[in-house]
Amino acid sequence: MRGFARRDTVRAALEWLDAHLRPLSSEVSRLRECGGRVLAEAIVSEFDVPGFDRSSMDGYAVVAASTEGAAGYTPLELRVIGDSMPGRPFDNSIAADEAVRVMTGAPVPRGADAVLPAEYAEETAGKIHVLASVSPAKNVGKRGEDIARGTTVLECGRHLRPQDLGVLSSIGHSQVRVVRRPRVRLVVTGSELLAAGSNPEGFHIVDANGPMLQALIERDGGIVDFPGLVRDEPAAILDALRADADIVIVTGGSSVGLEDFAPTLVAEHGELAVHGIAMRPSSPTGLGRIGERLVFLLPGNPVSALCGYDFFAGRAIRALGGRSKAWPYRAVSGRLARKISSPVGRLDYARVKFAEGVVEPLAIAGASLLSSTTRADGFVIVEDDSEGFAAGADVTIWLYA
Amino acid sequence: MRGFARRDTVRAALEWLDAHLRPLSSEVSRLRECGGRVLAEAIVSEFDVPGFDRSSMDGYAVVAASTEGAAGYTPLELRVIGDSMPGRPFDNSIAADEAVRVMTGAPVPRGADAVLPAEYAEETAGKIHVLASVSPAKNVGKRGEDIARGTTVLECGRHLRPQDLGVLSSIGHSQVRVVRRPRVRLVVTGSELLAAGSNPEGFHIVDANGPMLQALIERDGGIVDFPGLVRDEPAAILDALRADADIVIVTGGSSVGLEDFAPTLVAEHGELAVHGIAMRPSSPTGLGRIGERLVFLLPGNPVSALCGYDFFAGRAIRALGGRSKAWPYRAVSGRLARKISSPVGRLDYARVKFAEGVVEPLAIAGASLLSSTTRADGFVIVEDDSEGFAAGADVTIWLYA
Repeated sequence: MRGFARRDTVRAALEWLDAHLRPLSSEVSRLRECGGRVLAEAIVSEFDVPGFDRSSMDGYAVVAASTEGAAGYTPLELRVIGDSMPGRPFDNSIAADEAVRVMTGAPVPRGADAVLPAEYAEETAGKIHVLASVSPAKNVGKRGEDIARGTTVLECGRHLRPQDLGVLSSIGHSQVRVVRRPRVRLVVTGSELLAAGSNPEGFHIVDANGPMLQALIERDGGIVDFPGLVRDEPAAILDALRADADIVIVTGGSSVGLEDFAPTLVAEHGELAVHGIAMRPSSPTGLGRIGERLVFLLPGNPVSALCGYDFFAGRAIRALGGRSKAWPYRAVSGRLARKISSPVGRLDYARVKFAEGVVEPLAIAGASLLSSTTRADGFVIVEDDSEGFAAGADVTIWLYA
Repeated sequence: MRGFARRDTVRAALEWLDAHLRPLSSEVSRLRECGGRVLAEAIVSEFDVPGFDRSSMDGYAVVAASTEGAAGYTPLELRVIGDSMPGRPFDNSIAADEAVRVMTGAPVPRGADAVLPAEYAEETAGKIHVLASVSPAKNVGKRGEDIARGTTVLECGRHLRPQDLGVLSSIGHSQVRVVRRPRVRLVVTGSELLAAGSNPEGFHIVDANGPMLQALIERDGGIVDFPGLVRDEPAAILDALRADADIVIVTGGSSVGLEDFAPTLVAEHGELAVHGIAMRPSSPTGLGRIGERLVFLLPGNPVSALCGYDFFAGRAIRALGGRSKAWPYRAVSGRLARKISSPVGRLDYARVKFAEGVVEPLAIAGASLLSSTTRADGFVIVEDDSEGFAAGADVTIWLYA
């Protein structure tokens, strides 16, 4: 049995990783499926939206000059010659002594240059009494007021929001070019494991990492390929490491034990850039490449797998998909109920309870147990240049979502 | 033309709404599809996890008493009689002068009560020199240390996290009972509209609300039923209002204009509880019910549709699906670059730019334009008992995600 000769810092591991993170190529996707995707092209509108001057009020389209001097005691009179409804415009021009009923969003007829709001007009027998004057352009939304033809509507790299899809639709896009979603091959190994869906039995435990990592990968925008448990045999693991994927995540067999084949295989068939990281949990984590594939070797201990995923693999999946590298967790502040100690030289990922501003570290005893991450509300990071936090200190908590 | 006789406050509208929000019935779902779903049952473990005592270190399983007094200068000797690997235990018992090689996670053999870490042993020729003593139970994870049989692992109502799926898998669950996802019929009306996928043409504009609301509903966990635009005709709208759905969202024709059929139909065939709300935008919003269906009447103006959705419809979709009613937006603080004015008695939803702590309100002129919500980074709410915020004030910004 042997240990790690040395451990990289988290910072060094992230530096290697970030140097290898570039958004993937793009693909054309139907707008319907683009929520949360990342634009791989700038979108320039080929249309004015709206393509016509439209009323921004319910009222009467008029020639503004013909309302000049109108007031409650001295109303002017205009002849109502028709209606303009949304999608059903008034077909003729109007002249100075005329008005056209117009609804919000409906085209303003030719000849009219303002809309008199309904509350400033009294209509009877085909005529209106104008009770107030309107100035030219009043209550008229000009052609292109929302989006002018030639405008860059959305920049390349934009993380598409629901309203962006609305804007894209309004300028005639039914599909857009987006960054491809990373394809992630998930490799779960361990002779002690039974496949998810089994009952635990005898000296075997049921795979927790597969279902957890599937959900994490999908949260971060990856497409999961998880055909089932892989035997702890070099040939089977090498096969999986060479899968048709952008990223391979291996859990189990990532350390320096006798049956830990994956690190050696990555080193032999590619580059094992990082193996052993000064952090707890997840110190046996490895990072490397085989061909163009990024490979993440995560410990089989589910808490380590979660922590190693969040620090490294999730970051890569988000970045390859064009998203932010930042954690998809909400950061809040709280006050520590008890101290958190951590040796200088090691980064710690401490699970905590959080309620009413008070942060309660979970007992270290349960640190390797997955149930600690379901009892916890989130985690606190102690950087490797820190000895931890005293009781009463204000700390940042990353809330599990 | 007529206006709203009165407008309800946002608070009153939410009170009516909240009184009608109860989580839907439940359904059994495969674990694989349960990320982000809400548990409709408490989960009690029927198993101990692990189901056996296991080593928490790589080392040697021993009888603790047999290491008593061992030290670097006075090593004791134990005979190595076999290996215990994860999933492949050592089949016999061990006695006081014996040791079994054991890996992390592997079963601790019968007779052993502690694990001597590898670094405190020197192995040669089938024997180890013990360089330190271990106390009973040291480095042994007891059966059930992660999850003890009979423990309530997850409470009913839990919003399932990725690690929860791992825990569920580890106790033999391949499916769980979750709250049903709300089925939402989306009804988009407007004679001026062309279906998404068209180019804008003449006096017609392309539907922006459909694609936007689809993405919003899915974000909030709803299942969208959107068979296409609905004609502005009472029979067609009534048909849609009676769809097989938990929630119906109508956009367009929600106000008090001549062609606004939906409010009358809801009042005639069900209950129109709220119509007209003291807010901007979205004041023509209506809330009601037809049978068991909750009905939301949103204005056709896409900014109003977005705002009305976020205040009312999205809240209902989340609550019916068992989720939090709170906005799925991140709140941050910033300093206003310019004042935001708003009359007392009306709640305002002000789109803002936000960068480096500075909040820049967008020009009111563009308030009805959907592109204002793509240019904006988020919004500031001015409550109806406030006249707004002065330049320099600290405000809460809800960031669009």
